[in-house]
Amino acid sequence: MMSSPIQCPPVSRVVIFGGTHGNEMSGVTLVKHWLKDPSELHRKTFEPEPCLANPLAVEKCVRYIDSDLNRSFSEEVLSSSESESDPYEFKRARELNQKYGSGPGLFDFVFDLHNTTSNMGATLLRCSEDDILSLHLAKYLQSSSGNQSMPCYNYLIDIPKKDNVYLQNIGKHSLCLELGPQPQGVIRADVLTRMRELVNCGLDFLDLFNQGKEFPSFETDIYKVLTRVDYPRDHSGEISAFIHSGLQDKDYVPLKPGDPIFTTINGEVLHCNGDTVVYPTFINEAAYYEKKVAFILTEKVSRKVPALKLETLEHHV
Amino acid sequence: MMSSPIQCPPVSRVVIFGGTHGNEMSGVTLVKHWLKDPSELHRKTFEPEPCLANPLAVEKCVRYIDSDLNRSFSEEVLSSSESESDPYEFKRARELNQKYGSGPGLFDFVFDLHNTTSNMGATLLRCSEDDILSLHLAKYLQSSSGNQSMPCYNYLIDIPKKDNVYLQNIGKHSLCLELGPQPQGVIRADVLTRMRELVNCGLDFLDLFNQGKEFPSFETDIYKVLTRVDYPRDHSGEISAFIHSGLQDKDYVPLKPGDPIFTTINGEVLHCNGDTVVYPTFINEAAYYEKKVAFILTEKVSRKVPALKLETLEHHV
Repeated sequence: MMSSPIQCPPVSRVVIFGGTHGNEMSGVTLVKHWLKDPSELHRKTFEPEPCLANPLAVEKCVRYIDSDLNRSFSEEVLSSSESESDPYEFKRARELNQKYGSGPGLFDFVFDLHNTTSNMGATLLRCSEDDILSLHLAKYLQSSSGNQSMPCYNYLIDIPKKDNVYLQNIGKHSLCLELGPQPQGVIRADVLTRMRELVNCGLDFLDLFNQGKEFPSFETDIYKVLTRVDYPRDHSGEISAFIHSGLQDKDYVPLKPGDPIFTTINGEVLHCNGDTVVYPTFINEAAYYEKKVAFILTEKVSRKVPALKLETLEHHV
Repeated sequence: MMSSPIQCPPVSRVVIFGGTHGNEMSGVTLVKHWLKDPSELHRKTFEPEPCLANPLAVEKCVRYIDSDLNRSFSEEVLSSSESESDPYEFKRARELNQKYGSGPGLFDFVFDLHNTTSNMGATLLRCSEDDILSLHLAKYLQSSSGNQSMPCYNYLIDIPKKDNVYLQNIGKHSLCLELGPQPQGVIRADVLTRMRELVNCGLDFLDLFNQGKEFPSFETDIYKVLTRVDYPRDHSGEISAFIHSGLQDKDYVPLKPGDPIFTTINGEVLHCNGDTVVYPTFINEAAYYEKKVAFILTEKVSRKVPALKLETLEHHV
């Protein structure tokens, strides 16, 4: 038996963040362009707003100034009052939350544009199992967008709302695009084109939804975060082994028990000691060295997604 | 008629620099390892010294702290007296020059280990047309090293000694290894292995030379720097076009008049307007955005290299 469609109110306030990390250049370049010429973003039913999330970091072409903006949207930071000694990104997080994330001005949909040095293709990253609208949007991207040299993957970091520290969490619905591989500070035309195509396709979906199009139920694969794996380290905390060449660039490729994962500089190989097949992601991401993350293991789960339609007026009264 | 062999004195003082740029991780990782365990470097006729060139930048995993160390070895910087307000790298350049580059302690051979985000394979970069010993070493690397997934290219930036600002210039002979592509801040096992193999092979060559082996004359291709090309920019100095996808990753591939080189965000394509075939290099290198370099054009020239042998004692007396 089919479950009845989920109903959502129209999506009218949409923001597109780029430069949340100042050296992830696809989003930086696109948002800078849209700020000068937003005509491409215009849709019949809404007018999306581009926003450079971390302008100081963009100016210096670094990930962040004092602390990672995309880890600064904690309840604690957002609810505490401003202090002079706060990291720049804490102040900026409060500003962005004030403008896009709270009260009657709460935005309906947040796109957050990122790049990774890992071979992650076009990863569609969501932070809540319950956000059905963004799952439909992701499905639309997977079916509609032509370029298959960077395939789309559904990615889920399932975090309780209260523990979520990511920028995308400030909106009602959200999707983070993580495109790679692209080195920090570099604009690759192919990656930029793919990101632009995905954003436009996402806006088309929201426009169709607002106009009353119904989207049928479907079943989809989701890569769901299991655990973060650190590099092996010596007694002083220094990395003592690095990603094995057999694992490098193999994001989303099944990792089986016994597969090589790390190699020491003396050629000693460390193998995967799990007992099930898992899917490694964000392998050898430059920005994750300081976070003590060599890669993130996910499981591939199948998920039934109910149909989606616009909330009809009688639900409002 | 064959010219007579060039004679050189033995090469006994050899330094291997890594971390000249603190986020170029192959050299950083190898030199850190060799500082702990130098046994791999030992050769019959000499004992190479590993040195972390910019330890503060390595610690922070950035290219440099105040200014680019590998542009700090100018006569002006090296000969001026220290001042508190000097960039950190100016002080460090004087320290390194004092220890390795001057007086009776002058080093015979300098290896300088770098990575690039460009698809440069294993680029063997030299700064002087006259350094015949390093050309023989490069030839030895090209013939001896097994791994052909990162082929060796002979690269020449021909700069008069007095205008040379590069670290490698402080020794009598030198070779800079530029391996890529590798993102900044990332350790790729394949690139690290290739760099290690090349350094060891280079040390083998010097050891054979010191033991009296003669190296015959040969002819070789050299990519010689012609000109640096900046990104197109708007009136405010911002980049207005980026590397065309047809040029991306095509380092050392012949670039013909009319070939696409840049694309604007609106899809306008800019073509190569030269009238000869040239060879683009360092295409889309992350660190060169701030130097206003989109790529560096080279010409491929053929060079006859005379034979090389150890200077015999009677030349000393």
